[in-house]
Amino acid sequence: MADPVFFYFDFGSPYGYLASKRIDAIAARHGREVTWRAFLVGAAVKLTGVQSIFDQPLRGPYTVHDMQRFARLEGLPLKVPPVLPMHSLAASRAYYWLFDRDPALAKTFARAILKKEWGEGCDLSSVEAVAEAAVPLGIEADALLAAVRDPAVKDRLREEIDAAIAKGVFGSPFFLVDGEGFWGADRLDQVDCWLERGGW
Amino acid sequence: MADPVFFYFDFGSPYGYLASKRIDAIAARHGREVTWRAFLVGAAVKLTGVQSIFDQPLRGPYTVHDMQRFARLEGLPLKVPPVLPMHSLAASRAYYWLFDRDPALAKTFARAILKKEWGEGCDLSSVEAVAEAAVPLGIEADALLAAVRDPAVKDRLREEIDAAIAKGVFGSPFFLVDGEGFWGADRLDQVDCWLERGGW
Repeated sequence: MADPVFFYFDFGSPYGYLASKRIDAIAARHGREVTWRAFLVGAAVKLTGVQSIFDQPLRGPYTVHDMQRFARLEGLPLKVPPVLPMHSLAASRAYYWLFDRDPALAKTFARAILKKEWGEGCDLSSVEAVAEAAVPLGIEADALLAAVRDPAVKDRLREEIDAAIAKGVFGSPFFLVDGEGFWGADRLDQVDCWLERGGW
Repeated sequence: MADPVFFYFDFGSPYGYLASKRIDAIAARHGREVTWRAFLVGAAVKLTGVQSIFDQPLRGPYTVHDMQRFARLEGLPLKVPPVLPMHSLAASRAYYWLFDRDPALAKTFARAILKKEWGEGCDLSSVEAVAEAAVPLGIEADALLAAVRDPAVKDRLREEIDAAIAKGVFGSPFFLVDGEGFWGADRLDQVDCWLERGGW
């Protein structure tokens, strides 16, 4: 089987959420699986010098408007959370902790968190809110709370972020298709096309 | 006739160039004309705090790669200029100077400058290079050189930029369709759809 598509997303990114609803189906049409990779756009900020788009005049309000319009067009639920930007450190650490034990559960967890954050507009910045959202998936809250504070899990996330940046990843969503990078939910059609043609 | 679509573009923006090749045809399908508006993304930078994408680590190299891939997919010529970012002040002032005398000529001028800059990869940062590129259109080089240094023309551009920012414009390309703003060449399909449906 061909290599998986790598899908990098920040839990705090609405466009990462929107892309998460389509990327697996697109890849599946071309016989590909998708490896999800939680990413912290903030970690790339030190390098790019760009703060969160939500904190930027003009761009922030535009983005809040655009993400809702984008979701409506695609028929996806989207509710703006009360706090922007949302912190994604806790959810990201929990993601890799789960991934190393059960990749399928990690993906289910990611979908559930993204749905709660962006589909329902809940602020899941805190580790407690993430743990609570994980309980219905059979994930023990205490175990998750402990994992997020575990230095080994912290290192695990840091290594993933460093590896992603080394591959040129800097935003969310970001896709790697056979080494070719695509940034943005608005590049999904190009990802589809690249998978179809093997490049152009 | 319905209001025109407003198309804001920076002469130094490759995505502005790419969008310029499609926007008139899209609008025409819906019985709309397009008013072109030269814009300086740099003027919005003081507000957004974001420097040119070409000066940003990771994003700069990605953008150089992406704009070429984008152009290839759309079958449009694109050659990377030797200097990035390119300055667009001279071309923008010349644009409004022409626009007030002959809007059709101004659009022809804009197309010619964009083609030279991004289709052929020439650096048109200097007023001399802009004047030289305008000569084949029947525009006198000396008149253009004088106009670009005319305080009234400088004010004219400044007022256009201020008015654009007041409408929420901050990037290139940026489209206003009946007051609805869209940012990016990758929003052209949404512009098309908005014109078709009158919103969603």
